[in-house]
Amino acid sequence: MRSSVWRPERATSNCSNKPVGSGPSSSRSGRRRWPTRSGGDLPAGTKLVWGEEGLIEAAAGAGADYVVCALLGSLGLKSTLAAIDAGATIGLANKETLVTAGHIVMRRAAERGVPLLPIDSEHSAIFQCLNGEDRGTIRRLVITASGGSFRDRGRGELAGVTVEDALKHPNWSMGAKITIDSATMANKGLEVIEAHWLFDLPYDRIDVMLHPESIVHSMVEFVDTSVMAQLGNPDMRVPIQYALTYPERRPSPASPLDLLRAGTLHFKDMDFARYPCLKMAYEAGRAGGTAPTVFNAANEVAVARFLNREIPFLAIEDIIASALAAHEAIPEPDLEEIAFADGRARDAAARWRK
Amino acid sequence: MRSSVWRPERATSNCSNKPVGSGPSSSRSGRRRWPTRSGGDLPAGTKLVWGEEGLIEAAAGAGADYVVCALLGSLGLKSTLAAIDAGATIGLANKETLVTAGHIVMRRAAERGVPLLPIDSEHSAIFQCLNGEDRGTIRRLVITASGGSFRDRGRGELAGVTVEDALKHPNWSMGAKITIDSATMANKGLEVIEAHWLFDLPYDRIDVMLHPESIVHSMVEFVDTSVMAQLGNPDMRVPIQYALTYPERRPSPASPLDLLRAGTLHFKDMDFARYPCLKMAYEAGRAGGTAPTVFNAANEVAVARFLNREIPFLAIEDIIASALAAHEAIPEPDLEEIAFADGRARDAAARWRK
Repeated sequence: MRSSVWRPERATSNCSNKPVGSGPSSSRSGRRRWPTRSGGDLPAGTKLVWGEEGLIEAAAGAGADYVVCALLGSLGLKSTLAAIDAGATIGLANKETLVTAGHIVMRRAAERGVPLLPIDSEHSAIFQCLNGEDRGTIRRLVITASGGSFRDRGRGELAGVTVEDALKHPNWSMGAKITIDSATMANKGLEVIEAHWLFDLPYDRIDVMLHPESIVHSMVEFVDTSVMAQLGNPDMRVPIQYALTYPERRPSPASPLDLLRAGTLHFKDMDFARYPCLKMAYEAGRAGGTAPTVFNAANEVAVARFLNREIPFLAIEDIIASALAAHEAIPEPDLEEIAFADGRARDAAARWRK
Repeated sequence: MRSSVWRPERATSNCSNKPVGSGPSSSRSGRRRWPTRSGGDLPAGTKLVWGEEGLIEAAAGAGADYVVCALLGSLGLKSTLAAIDAGATIGLANKETLVTAGHIVMRRAAERGVPLLPIDSEHSAIFQCLNGEDRGTIRRLVITASGGSFRDRGRGELAGVTVEDALKHPNWSMGAKITIDSATMANKGLEVIEAHWLFDLPYDRIDVMLHPESIVHSMVEFVDTSVMAQLGNPDMRVPIQYALTYPERRPSPASPLDLLRAGTLHFKDMDFARYPCLKMAYEAGRAGGTAPTVFNAANEVAVARFLNREIPFLAIEDIIASALAAHEAIPEPDLEEIAFADGRARDAAARWRK
């Protein structure tokens, strides 16, 4: 049984090369100041760690029974594996960990008997739909997609869109990277690959459906034709809390869903020609090995370059396509091979010119 | 563990006063003819039973570990109780059993440790949404309602509707009684009372929402604001099968849900002025005791009289209102008191004149 009282042991920032420290324990009296980044003036008993080693120590060295992995991008892989090795239950908010190394992470978690609890709203929805169900009776998953900032524009209208336009997500308030990934549907592609690993299903049993209202967070169809769906307002506090309280549910400060106010829910077929990044994600997922790593790395650099106003919006997909075309697949890669493929794809994406 | 192979032991017709017999066992060779109603020419080893005693013997005397109670109206109560007493798992398709005697049936099932598995599509949906969940974390149930045959008409347009009009349900293909009950929303009222007993929730935590497409069969909102929903085509084979295979799911001959073809799902607030039968059902449920019995009995007679073209459609609600107004509530009634209230309400409903 997990204790029903949480005592956070460590919190780290998501900057990989800046020093971070463990926070003051909530159960300890005395001075409660976070360590400064310069490392001076630490409260007694506080240890300053930084870099990848610091992340690993924070994730695995504190004896925590629950570690939330919420780093952005592919940074979180080694510390997540360290937390798994330490036997901690993992709350996984970092898509790239499974996208780049799903075969390693899932095997390691299974060997250690460590639960991997999804925090992404779509995967949390699927996870909730699977409550009390036999996973062998899943017919398919349906991941819903809002369509992102430009869902009402055709491909012809995307050439000149600005960073500011792209950052206006219709439903969710999120960081810049994921908001752009929603507009290109690369985010949904990462989610499909993540779902493949989390729920152990082949890609032809993971579908994506456009659902502009973002109220049905995802669905599971079973062999008896029953479809279970999880609905709610777009509010990340709910899936985050669920991963932390699972298998319990606790009252949430989020607003209850007012389905009468929403009134109408729309569902539309995914248009892969309109969203080639999703198509490439499926292809990379099916190719397996290092292909998803290359998809993800090229996308990360391309989005950064778009946000930096170096390239137009539509070049994001060109950069991913070019990286995948140049990539030589390595099946069942180890961490070193993943890192190498990641680095090479990033270099190529950074150098890409029209 | 329940056996995964079914061998039907008894099947009875839903006519209470005509003789019925056990069918030929599917595992037995030889002549396979059903007994005729006159009782002649029975296969060896077949016993002819009839009337309420016959129902009770069929439900409880065969040593079956699973009994489906699917009689129409209030006929099924005693045989359901007998099956519970015999320790059989109950598949409950008969609403009136819980509506009239929920306090007795649920207590008896709890004492015997007998599972009551709902077969109605709405209650099956709620039951599926509660899979793996702690029932203490339910905030409310949302039962969906198609609106019935006359959903596109206002109250002013209901005065002259015919039996033929009323029998055209937009989504479900059902018997005459329940199709009329859908048009008056009395059916939804019975479902609300049934849900109150099945899921042990007060009436102010059971809501009804209009959902014309009948695709979301019902929903459960939890304390963390998450809403779980069960979706599917309107096809009774799915909830019937689920009750039989629970906790397993097995492949179904039903068509998978094509949400893309449906495209749009609508949700509207229930209009209690438009559907006074639902309002009266809530009132009867809240009053408790014999009030739901009176609601149900008056409704049964009123619908029969409408189908018999004795009264106009809108008189159904008048008959129920008049029966409830004349009724003196008996709290915690026993079976005899229930039968008495039932009979009196039926007499009054049969005699009712405008």
